[in-house]
Amino acid sequence: MYVILVNDMKQQRVNRMLKLCRRYLHWIQNSVFEGEISEVKLMALLTKARAIMHEDEDSTILFKSRTQQWLEKQVVGCERSPLDTIL
Amino acid sequence: MYVILVNDMKQQRVNRMLKLCRRYLHWIQNSVFEGEISEVKLMALLTKARAIMHEDEDSTILFKSRTQQWLEKQVVGCERSPLDTIL
Repeated sequence: MYVILVNDMKQQRVNRMLKLCRRYLHWIQNSVFEGEISEVKLMALLTKARAIMHEDEDSTILFKSRTQQWLEKQVVGCERSPLDTIL
Repeated sequence: MYVILVNDMKQQRVNRMLKLCRRYLHWIQNSVFEGEISEVKLMALLTKARAIMHEDEDSTILFKSRTQQWLEKQVVGCERSPLDTIL
């Protein structure tokens, strides 16, 4: 399954969430991740994410698609993703 | 067409971009928008967005799908969207 994950976290939890999400998905922008992931791994990611999040203050939105082919991606402005390999 | 739009803007341009995107799409989180939009309206939105953006500093990512049915959305934590009608 292909997912897009977007986080909206309080500043003090951003880095922990970033590290977690990068273990499972590709970081493409600020707090946006994408990638192929299995149902089992996604459940693991969400369990760990919930342990970091304060559910009354933080928010994560997932968009799931059966295949990446159903989504066309377009980037306007600067590409962040090349940083992914450096950080 | 159904789109997900994610902005990563410098602080001083966030509000202008927010106002622009809300004229075309539903605001669902921090800098994330979604909605049905025609090709023509999307072109208009992107033209106006480029006029606001500094393309070396800001970034907008669009995910386009022929239909919303191909995407399943899941929200973890707090829902931001109820604010949309208030702000």
